[in-house]
Amino acid sequence: MAYSKAWLNYQVVENIRFPFDTLYAETGDKRIQIAAQELQVAAKELAKIKLSLVSDSSQIQRAAKENGAIPAARVVKGGIFLEIDGEMQNEESYRISRQGRGLVVCGGGESGLLYGTFALIRIMQTDPQLLSKICSGKQTVEQAPANPLRMLNHWDNVDGSIERGYAGNSFFFVGNELVIDGRTRDYARLLASVGINGTVINNVNVRGAATELITERCLPQLSRLAELFSSYGVKLYLSLNFAAPIELGGLATCDPLDGQVQDFWKKKMEQVYAKVPSLGGFLVKADSEGRPGPFTYGRNHAEGANMLARAIRPYGGLIIWRCFVYNCRQDWRDRKTDRARAGYDNFMPLDGQFDDNVILQIKNGPMDFQVREPVSPLFSGLKETNMMLEVQAAQEYTGQQRHLCYLVPMWREILDFKTYAAGKGGDGADSVADIVSGRLYGQGNCGMAAVANTGDDENWTGHDMAAANFYGFGRLAFDTALTAEEIAREWVRCTYGCNREILDCMLPMLLSSWETYEKYTSPLGIGWMVNPSHHYGPNVDGYEYDRWGTYHYSDCRGMGVDRTMSGTGYVSQYNEPNCSMYEDIKTCPEELLLFFHHVPYTYRLKTGKTLIQHIYDSHFEGAMQAQNMLLNFDSLKHILPPGAFERIHTRLKVQADHAKEWRDRINTYYFRISGIPDEKGRTIY
Amino acid sequence: MAYSKAWLNYQVVENIRFPFDTLYAETGDKRIQIAAQELQVAAKELAKIKLSLVSDSSQIQRAAKENGAIPAARVVKGGIFLEIDGEMQNEESYRISRQGRGLVVCGGGESGLLYGTFALIRIMQTDPQLLSKICSGKQTVEQAPANPLRMLNHWDNVDGSIERGYAGNSFFFVGNELVIDGRTRDYARLLASVGINGTVINNVNVRGAATELITERCLPQLSRLAELFSSYGVKLYLSLNFAAPIELGGLATCDPLDGQVQDFWKKKMEQVYAKVPSLGGFLVKADSEGRPGPFTYGRNHAEGANMLARAIRPYGGLIIWRCFVYNCRQDWRDRKTDRARAGYDNFMPLDGQFDDNVILQIKNGPMDFQVREPVSPLFSGLKETNMMLEVQAAQEYTGQQRHLCYLVPMWREILDFKTYAAGKGGDGADSVADIVSGRLYGQGNCGMAAVANTGDDENWTGHDMAAANFYGFGRLAFDTALTAEEIAREWVRCTYGCNREILDCMLPMLLSSWETYEKYTSPLGIGWMVNPSHHYGPNVDGYEYDRWGTYHYSDCRGMGVDRTMSGTGYVSQYNEPNCSMYEDIKTCPEELLLFFHHVPYTYRLKTGKTLIQHIYDSHFEGAMQAQNMLLNFDSLKHILPPGAFERIHTRLKVQADHAKEWRDRINTYYFRISGIPDEKGRTIY
Repeated sequence: MAYSKAWLNYQVVENIRFPFDTLYAETGDKRIQIAAQELQVAAKELAKIKLSLVSDSSQIQRAAKENGAIPAARVVKGGIFLEIDGEMQNEESYRISRQGRGLVVCGGGESGLLYGTFALIRIMQTDPQLLSKICSGKQTVEQAPANPLRMLNHWDNVDGSIERGYAGNSFFFVGNELVIDGRTRDYARLLASVGINGTVINNVNVRGAATELITERCLPQLSRLAELFSSYGVKLYLSLNFAAPIELGGLATCDPLDGQVQDFWKKKMEQVYAKVPSLGGFLVKADSEGRPGPFTYGRNHAEGANMLARAIRPYGGLIIWRCFVYNCRQDWRDRKTDRARAGYDNFMPLDGQFDDNVILQIKNGPMDFQVREPVSPLFSGLKETNMMLEVQAAQEYTGQQRHLCYLVPMWREILDFKTYAAGKGGDGADSVADIVSGRLYGQGNCGMAAVANTGDDENWTGHDMAAANFYGFGRLAFDTALTAEEIAREWVRCTYGCNREILDCMLPMLLSSWETYEKYTSPLGIGWMVNPSHHYGPNVDGYEYDRWGTYHYSDCRGMGVDRTMSGTGYVSQYNEPNCSMYEDIKTCPEELLLFFHHVPYTYRLKTGKTLIQHIYDSHFEGAMQAQNMLLNFDSLKHILPPGAFERIHTRLKVQADHAKEWRDRINTYYFRISGIPDEKGRTIY
Repeated sequence: MAYSKAWLNYQVVENIRFPFDTLYAETGDKRIQIAAQELQVAAKELAKIKLSLVSDSSQIQRAAKENGAIPAARVVKGGIFLEIDGEMQNEESYRISRQGRGLVVCGGGESGLLYGTFALIRIMQTDPQLLSKICSGKQTVEQAPANPLRMLNHWDNVDGSIERGYAGNSFFFVGNELVIDGRTRDYARLLASVGINGTVINNVNVRGAATELITERCLPQLSRLAELFSSYGVKLYLSLNFAAPIELGGLATCDPLDGQVQDFWKKKMEQVYAKVPSLGGFLVKADSEGRPGPFTYGRNHAEGANMLARAIRPYGGLIIWRCFVYNCRQDWRDRKTDRARAGYDNFMPLDGQFDDNVILQIKNGPMDFQVREPVSPLFSGLKETNMMLEVQAAQEYTGQQRHLCYLVPMWREILDFKTYAAGKGGDGADSVADIVSGRLYGQGNCGMAAVANTGDDENWTGHDMAAANFYGFGRLAFDTALTAEEIAREWVRCTYGCNREILDCMLPMLLSSWETYEKYTSPLGIGWMVNPSHHYGPNVDGYEYDRWGTYHYSDCRGMGVDRTMSGTGYVSQYNEPNCSMYEDIKTCPEELLLFFHHVPYTYRLKTGKTLIQHIYDSHFEGAMQAQNMLLNFDSLKHILPPGAFERIHTRLKVQADHAKEWRDRINTYYFRISGIPDEKGRTIY
């Protein structure tokens, strides 16, 4: 099937100044070979320049010497040098600078060089001024990745389906077989271009044939795939079935303290790494939503994770252990148990007990990727445990890639959240970004992961503009100082070229889309008002009487969940002053009001509006904004490339209609239950 | 797979008096052969008597003469004569009487004789007093079937699954193939034993491979099946795909007025009847829930049905046309459209336009097999159209055969409903029973159909006691004068023998189960508070904001659907005085109160209770009754056959627990929305 180039859609940049004709690169390593090829292609497509490649070592050395000796002013055209600089501290960092009459792209290692090359190409695509400054020697660009690990988690099943996939089927698996083709390579190229250095290709729910990925049947193909990924600086990871000792090993148990189980894993890792030596490690979902785990045997999660970590240690592998552990058989009548508490309650007592090649992967919020949640208190609490932040590019609860919802602003807020882990009077360098990057606690095994939003759709992501989340995750994970706007701007330009009208139209669409989606779906942090199972579309009581621990407790007087000290006590999991801030309804951020408090409909918000009026207004506004987005987008009718306009327009239409359905259902529910009419007299059914 | 004999579980009857040793029957016809065999088996099992069969015509004549000549007092043992009496008006009727020293089972035709034989066996199983009276010549039993057609509708898919099936998979179809084996024969035997004379073996939603049932590939097997069924007096019917001219015929249309389409069906019927001459005809679901139909071509349902009827007429076949036609894409905001009106609105204008080999099959209520609905007004309205009453033995909305819900009392009420079709001052012979039996309008093509509740489970019906609905439908359709209690009593005795404790325990369970189920699920006729799609378990808003036209309109003040003249006007579809009775909240039967009226929670019912208090009380009572049923059933622990107790007990436990879930969810919803506490201060969440 044909598929797009996404943001690597190199188009001619008008009036580009790129005065080079030769590319010098020792292409012994595949990553450098790829960097060189990529730069040649980009120069040709973007600037119509043919870069000749010189890869002979002595020729390069001679040219480098000459380049340094000749004053820049004497020549018109120069060379580009792709070099490794062993002095740079981080193998993945890069520097782009003018030296003599040449341009030097320098990497701390081969991956850094590849990232530097893609950075140069991105600057060519998006920032002529910066390019000019670099080429004229006025500016040097230097960058080390903020996070050591920058990963994607694919929830692809080996049968080719994708759990929570909204962009077609898997391009990794077809009919229980691993596929490696041109698209696999182009996928790795997209990852490298934004600095993603790891990917888990199979669903965290490992069942049936997926368990067999770590058997001889699959290892040869995995070895080929790992090699292909390595040539783009990407490590292959797999999700693992904790019950494999039973299902593959024929044992009666998968108890992590059982000698036979430990032996199974030791031998299994030996077998796997003999065939796939570059494998990064394994992602594990245990004791969660029906998956097996250490709890079955009365063991804790440290015992479970460490057992695997010790088996994989000889090969330098990592065990990434998900913290998404909660009671998914809760009784809705029980108002004391609070799912939001579960991650912290389960994992805080284990702080310091995990081996150093174990990483806890923690979802951004305490629930599950709702449009708005507070930041998980585990980031504030854990101090002696490797942590990775998990976000979800797949729009499970945020419109399923039929609605536009650019999530980088949300991720930006999460990274900026001040944890007070370094104490109340600290220097402030204890944001989530400081923690997951390893800066605060000096950790190396940490970083960010995103549940991927890709599939085999032509445009990779279902909604053309959902690719901004894929792109944005990689960029933000690499450089946590970027703003959501900078990333959006880059993505539009890389994808659609430098047309001003496209940028002027799409940039505000992207930047307002999260807030718009929040307004017409679930304002004030309540969440969960979706249809069960598939999670698409409004259903106020969809999860209200269910076993998932996700309630709003609406009655004729008010709504929301009391998580204060007199409620479930969840607020106590935060450091001060966050705990007190959430505890007090007056200081609790209003966007999270109903997450922390049960509030009467007549309660007045800071705007002076009552809660019920805010609910009505928010839904009317959100639906109107979705409608306006559709109308504004019309201006791009003859400007966007053929196909793109129609595809996006169709989805925006679906979104605008669906936003009205959200508005009417939620408003009707609250009008019926509260009996309080809309002050503005708009139609509520 | 092993399976039970259900109610044909012949067990020794203590002290039975059955003074016969010889069976005289000319067994040329298969039905008579089967009747004779059945009686031999039953005599042996029930009374330990070996009946010798005499089938030689001259021997029989001699014996019959002798029998009449010799006074009964002179001999101890006599013979049983199976005879056809050409004088009887109805081929399916029978008479059992003492003549001379012998017992004569006489049929108006072969099927009648078979029914008479099964009736005799049933009397042997259940009623020693009556048996004694018959044997001693003090009583004659004579019976003609009340309804000409007594049919089952199976919703079995050819892949072996069953739509709304709660008793395992199909025993007709496995992997797109029709299966004929011992179970098929035993199925036919069960039908014959209760007088069912027709069965549709495939789902009314005919898709994919099911469309091919009427092609050469399947006809030879169907022919064998039809022959097997015929030997039990059962006609085979099929469901038909209205779009077959497109899907099988390669035509561009299935427009009933198109010559090519008419030609397709003419040839198709010719082909089908050449191979399966005894086929009864076809059941058709058209223009319903996504199925194709005449509306697509701007034709009406009479045009659609008559087109098929004319193609099938040469072979004496019937077209049974379902009236389940409504807009299943309704906007929940639209409070004017009323799904309850749809059947009448669609079909009343066509009264008199259907050919006489077309039968309209009308669901008992205007919605869809809820635990309580008013009787469909079509029965009151149509006067020149053949009608068949459709009920659902499959417990789609009544506990899915995990809950005990004996439905005969409901069907009894429906049959007894006075339509006033014969006018306000009529003689009263215008009940639904009078209409569907053909008595009121002198019709021959009419009767009753039940959606079957069977599958390949060991006990046929999932819940052992759900077999009472299968049994009960057949018995009631044959004899609409039977009470629900008489039928229940028969079923218990036929199934479990004459043990008094079993009868004393099960009879009240059966008879109270419908009301109990209604109490803890959906009292006062509101219906639909179920989980969408699968329809199991409580969900007050499950269909409230959906497209199916099934709403309760609960708000903080009241609930229910206003179907009076100032509401949707549905009441106007009834004849007077029914219309006025439903229109007035004071005369509207309270069990249908919320079906016809939007009622404030503070409205006082005839008991003096408020509506809201009635809701609370009803759910508490219903759940308690379900719990009591479980406790009472315990008394049968060592009395029921091994396996039966455990199976039933397990389901009653599920029911008791689930009834509490119903109680708590519904009560909590209404407490939250109304804000009115339970007067008795019980726990509501």
